[in-house]
Amino acid sequence: MRIAIDAMGGDHAPKVVVEGALAAAKEWTDVEIILVGNTAAIEAHLGERPANLTIRHTEEVIEADDEPVKAVRRKKDASMVVAGKLVREKEAEAMISAGNTGALMTTGLLVVGRIPGIERPALAPMLPTIDGNGVLALDLGANMDATAEHLTQYAIMGSIYRNKVHGIANPRVGLLNVGTEAMKGNELTKAAYPLLEQAPVEFIGNVESRDVLRAGCDVIVCDGFAGNIMLKSLEGAASVFFSVLKTEFTKTWYSKLAAAILKPGIMKFRKQFDYKEHGAGPLLGIQGLVLKCHGSSDANAIKNAVRQARIAIQNDLVGAISAEINHGK
Amino acid sequence: MRIAIDAMGGDHAPKVVVEGALAAAKEWTDVEIILVGNTAAIEAHLGERPANLTIRHTEEVIEADDEPVKAVRRKKDASMVVAGKLVREKEAEAMISAGNTGALMTTGLLVVGRIPGIERPALAPMLPTIDGNGVLALDLGANMDATAEHLTQYAIMGSIYRNKVHGIANPRVGLLNVGTEAMKGNELTKAAYPLLEQAPVEFIGNVESRDVLRAGCDVIVCDGFAGNIMLKSLEGAASVFFSVLKTEFTKTWYSKLAAAILKPGIMKFRKQFDYKEHGAGPLLGIQGLVLKCHGSSDANAIKNAVRQARIAIQNDLVGAISAEINHGK
Repeated sequence: MRIAIDAMGGDHAPKVVVEGALAAAKEWTDVEIILVGNTAAIEAHLGERPANLTIRHTEEVIEADDEPVKAVRRKKDASMVVAGKLVREKEAEAMISAGNTGALMTTGLLVVGRIPGIERPALAPMLPTIDGNGVLALDLGANMDATAEHLTQYAIMGSIYRNKVHGIANPRVGLLNVGTEAMKGNELTKAAYPLLEQAPVEFIGNVESRDVLRAGCDVIVCDGFAGNIMLKSLEGAASVFFSVLKTEFTKTWYSKLAAAILKPGIMKFRKQFDYKEHGAGPLLGIQGLVLKCHGSSDANAIKNAVRQARIAIQNDLVGAISAEINHGK
Repeated sequence: MRIAIDAMGGDHAPKVVVEGALAAAKEWTDVEIILVGNTAAIEAHLGERPANLTIRHTEEVIEADDEPVKAVRRKKDASMVVAGKLVREKEAEAMISAGNTGALMTTGLLVVGRIPGIERPALAPMLPTIDGNGVLALDLGANMDATAEHLTQYAIMGSIYRNKVHGIANPRVGLLNVGTEAMKGNELTKAAYPLLEQAPVEFIGNVESRDVLRAGCDVIVCDGFAGNIMLKSLEGAASVFFSVLKTEFTKTWYSKLAAAILKPGIMKFRKQFDYKEHGAGPLLGIQGLVLKCHGSSDANAIKNAVRQARIAIQNDLVGAISAEINHGK
């Protein structure tokens, strides 16, 4: 199997991307890695080159602050766009990038293309949960508005992903809502509820955002706007919480001493709730696997994204989504 | 001025409500308190009765799990509904209740009535911020869906509330959104943005939910669905954090010792971020003042709600909202 990696995307590119790709190539010899980017910049960090790692030279780079649609249309030789082309032309089964999220979604949609029958692709990162298993949340930003039909397709795609990539037999799917009763919510969730009851997923009903961290479900569906509000509220709370803890911990010499005792447990918890630690988020509904790594990914995160891509390819994630969506059509 | 208090609403009613009302009557002799509820139940907790405290006897009570609209329509002699009638008939300028939130919103809308020109009343609690000043968030649940025009009215009402009740000269109003740039968001926020720029408020643009706790604005506007997702995400994160801290703090005898040192600071922080501590939330857009106290309010919270109502009445909050909404009409 072949996996294209955007060597130029991410805060620490190309260094950490090249290091992660190299580690992955060494660990999984059944994977052919195609590093897409500037050859000289890549080689500066590569050292040795295993037989299953090649470079595809490109001249352009999509920057973090580039306007997504414009950048993808104009920078035809950008590393991200070329990686997308490799997937479209079946020269790779998957692409991985830690670059501009909007541009990657555009690359998925315009360069790689949708699975026929899918109305809207969805960005589906894992959110941390208190039990450590995480929950796949979608859509978290590919489409701000959604219809009830879109949410139903998100449920199907998310459910197949948790099954194929994480081996969960019957992933529990929840609908993000403001109350647990069936008739709670806005017009969108009220319309989606009966469709989800009929959908080929294990629908467990409405889930409130305060319970998402408490691992009530394996997949949570929502429109991109609500998903983003939830995600950033959780991030904001975590950020405030840890900054207050830090202040408390460094107030006096005896609080510093106390903090030293508690620190390992707190740090473990902090790591557990760090979004970067929870792997790459797939863009589901695309004719090939597109994985988004966090911009601040390190080499290990890149290597883990290859691990995820490898499992998804082995289990034909994209084929399974396409078959289910077009089932009976 | 006369303030009607629903003596039977809340987890610890009528005891704490009566105690809070009594304390308020003693502190502010310019306020006439009307305790609405079962006379015998109220008198059991009253002891003395100051001249500025009267009881309005009612037989029925709206329970926490009553279906709001049905309960308000059928239980015409419920303490909450009768308190609403007192406001409608100008026998009181304000009502306070710690009872069923949905029923209180229904009482505001159907019993007290909207201010002419207001399309949708909004529930506007204060959320905690890291600087301790808090942010007024609306709508947090009165209407799940909203139009751009509704959000604009929320901005005006919230701004007047912060000015009249909290004395902020030019309250900064933010639009809850997924990014700070003007064109970010869903169809609703994109339509609301230019209206907010034209509105008679100090509009500071989009605010992301991760920055709400960091006190970027004095008022944040959103539809009831997004507001609820934000609020419950923050609550959920706080709940998980404090439960993890508790586990860490009680792991070993030396972690218990360390925890004892850090506990006062942590508890102060916890209290600061406890929604119950941030006063009653007004239902804005109603022809009279309706204040919602948290269900688990104690006597002090009830007394503080009277303080809030008193300031709002002194500064003619309702008249000011009505004048601004109908300005130039």
